[in-house]
Amino acid sequence: MPEPTTITAAAGFIRSGELTPSELLEQCFKRIDRYEDRVQAWAYLDRDGACEQAVRLTSELKAGQNRGPLHGIPIGIKDIIDVFDMPTGCGSKLWANSYARHDATVVERLRQAGAIIIGKTVTTTFASFDPPKTRNPWNLDRTPGGSSSGSAAAVACGMCLGALASQTGGSITRPASYCGVYSIKPTHGRVSVNGVMPLAPSLDHVGAMANCVRDLAILLQPLARTNDDWRDSPPVPYHYESELKNELYHDRRRRLSLLPGFPAIADQDMTTAVATLRKLTDCSLGERTETNRWEWNELPLPPSFSDVPRFQHLVMAVEAAAYHADRMRRHPDDYPPKVRQLIEKGLNTPAPEYVHAKELLEHYREESEPAFVDGWRTYLTPATTGPAPSAETTGNPAFNSPWSYCGLPTVSLPFAWTADGLPLAVQLTGERWCEDDLLMVAAMLEADIAFERRPLPL
Amino acid sequence: MPEPTTITAAAGFIRSGELTPSELLEQCFKRIDRYEDRVQAWAYLDRDGACEQAVRLTSELKAGQNRGPLHGIPIGIKDIIDVFDMPTGCGSKLWANSYARHDATVVERLRQAGAIIIGKTVTTTFASFDPPKTRNPWNLDRTPGGSSSGSAAAVACGMCLGALASQTGGSITRPASYCGVYSIKPTHGRVSVNGVMPLAPSLDHVGAMANCVRDLAILLQPLARTNDDWRDSPPVPYHYESELKNELYHDRRRRLSLLPGFPAIADQDMTTAVATLRKLTDCSLGERTETNRWEWNELPLPPSFSDVPRFQHLVMAVEAAAYHADRMRRHPDDYPPKVRQLIEKGLNTPAPEYVHAKELLEHYREESEPAFVDGWRTYLTPATTGPAPSAETTGNPAFNSPWSYCGLPTVSLPFAWTADGLPLAVQLTGERWCEDDLLMVAAMLEADIAFERRPLPL
Repeated sequence: MPEPTTITAAAGFIRSGELTPSELLEQCFKRIDRYEDRVQAWAYLDRDGACEQAVRLTSELKAGQNRGPLHGIPIGIKDIIDVFDMPTGCGSKLWANSYARHDATVVERLRQAGAIIIGKTVTTTFASFDPPKTRNPWNLDRTPGGSSSGSAAAVACGMCLGALASQTGGSITRPASYCGVYSIKPTHGRVSVNGVMPLAPSLDHVGAMANCVRDLAILLQPLARTNDDWRDSPPVPYHYESELKNELYHDRRRRLSLLPGFPAIADQDMTTAVATLRKLTDCSLGERTETNRWEWNELPLPPSFSDVPRFQHLVMAVEAAAYHADRMRRHPDDYPPKVRQLIEKGLNTPAPEYVHAKELLEHYREESEPAFVDGWRTYLTPATTGPAPSAETTGNPAFNSPWSYCGLPTVSLPFAWTADGLPLAVQLTGERWCEDDLLMVAAMLEADIAFERRPLPL
Repeated sequence: MPEPTTITAAAGFIRSGELTPSELLEQCFKRIDRYEDRVQAWAYLDRDGACEQAVRLTSELKAGQNRGPLHGIPIGIKDIIDVFDMPTGCGSKLWANSYARHDATVVERLRQAGAIIIGKTVTTTFASFDPPKTRNPWNLDRTPGGSSSGSAAAVACGMCLGALASQTGGSITRPASYCGVYSIKPTHGRVSVNGVMPLAPSLDHVGAMANCVRDLAILLQPLARTNDDWRDSPPVPYHYESELKNELYHDRRRRLSLLPGFPAIADQDMTTAVATLRKLTDCSLGERTETNRWEWNELPLPPSFSDVPRFQHLVMAVEAAAYHADRMRRHPDDYPPKVRQLIEKGLNTPAPEYVHAKELLEHYREESEPAFVDGWRTYLTPATTGPAPSAETTGNPAFNSPWSYCGLPTVSLPFAWTADGLPLAVQLTGERWCEDDLLMVAAMLEADIAFERRPLPL
């Protein structure tokens, strides 16, 4: 029996009848049994419910109904997102038994697309920076990153084939990168946050993690909002996955813009790995000629950039405080140090500073657009400062939070291993609402990098 | 220090400075301490939070800010309605610790109006028919009615001066009547159900209970939706309470229409009491002449009426099943017999019967309108079949569910005592969206009945 680790492969086997949803789910459960004690990716697991869903979806297939590439695919949901009849714990002690009465919009959409919701993945408390119980599957002494810690670790272990995650600073890209999985943070507003605990609504994004770029396209398809009352977003322009399938993109010019000085704190491992990537792919450096040629460029940072990291953190702190302050006063024990610190920072911020930060945010959103000159539609930056640090932290979101701030879509993909066996990832940033183009570039880069997945050391 | 039992009186004392919100709250807590052991009206109490709110609202007054007649008034919220940082238990074991992340819209509106939210009042499980722990304060062997059991009992005991309740069949009017308090069930759609656990969305209403008609107007004011995306409803036409204050209504003709045969199951106590009420107020019977004269009329039931009770129950069963069936299968222990029976009925109903019931509902909504001929704009019916029955049941909603079905607004008011000291109430029904007129008629009737409140026997 095949044991696929990507949604794309699993969907193929399910379509051909080589694998049923129930069999695929069983494989995920076996990996959970094997790894969960050490990795602790799950806040809540619903094995019985998942089995039921798998049986129903298997029957649908027997009756000739296939809902598409997510039909029968086991998915994990970050524990700040409501799933009917599961608690939405948000990493809080007091909310550990707070059962959701409804699916969040994104969960409802995944179910309609045939996904099997198997449980809730661990989040840092209130999606902030306090290290959770989850460990990095590549090295149990390291952090999986945060705040979408469980989603990244679960996908890395194959406990589920995809997961929902969320990002306000670097909470999708960072854990995905530390755990060696792929991630997408769509344009701010592309995906509904209805039924998702807010951290800072101006900056909150729901996104996804999986084990290849095409899987990200498959997951984005049902998540991308069509008509929704929450926020204006253009209609979904493409069938993201079909765009990749038709492979027209092979004719596209392969151009990547670097952003020197963004924010210039990558460690030696990361700096070397990105330089090697450039060397291997840059046609002007003579290593490649006909196919797989990439042109590299260096673009200046938007003028407002230097203030961005500070102001991103300020907006996050103030909006988190607006949501949590009253509750934190009432339940101080439910707030571990880092989220407490964040909220206290928000509480101590004079309101005019917040107004300035929001003005800069608008300004920066505008300034970050014109940089995408014709044919140079993608930034490439490190996804993190380096490999996963110790489990006493959740790592540094410095490479991610500027993209959360301006709301541009990003995709991250693993591309190298450190000497001690930890994955490294790069982050691609595209134009607002152009997830289709961004995924195409990411798929081309993925194909050319030919990143080699390794077996887990556990 | 004054000890007001109505919002109207309390607001007067707060305005004049004779009473502070903190002192008023303290009075409510004392009554809770005195009665709660026996009555058990509360699913959750937040004394500290309530005290904090009272302190803040007392300070506002000292600074010259008065939010209006709800400023500093202690209010209870039925436990199917979300209140931030309190569990929404819905009478379910599994949801007993399901903390709400947001206020329901109605709670938010009450807070803005200055109300102090002191806790969650007991509901029957999932707002259905299984007797809850709450007892009738007039006789502990009797039911307080359901499903808004705790709201009615708490207001009757003065544990709070008003409460939110909800009705799908007879869940506001019935408990209010059994407990001797006043209630309003506004037009279906007048009040938002956002953040309220549904029982049957076609029929669910949020309403209020208090200790006089004017208090109902005061409570309805912030609850009545102005602009909301959920459902079309006309803008709030009046300031409900001002309408009562200006007392222009004394010039209004006092006309009440009886509905013989609706549904003709009142017991002897109730039948006699209504006959006496008519005799005392009917000018044509010669008892009254100049002022306080009421004209009485008898109108035929709408032609579709005979099917209404059956179809109301069917719609309720089917929609409850749609919401609960999956959950009940997964957690059978969380479903006591009567709600289980309701859901099973829904599950066993062929869908075309539901379609017929919904068609009848529309039809009946239309037919129930023309009966309001000029100057005869109010139906009077018994509010219940009789006084509160034993605590092994929650009583019969037969006099209420037809009004839940057609969505017309109702107000109930106590008007007599039985020989063994239980209150009886009548129910007034008005035209769609005309809560202002209905409250005016109710206030006139209240004044003329001069119902005597008795001290609680506890």
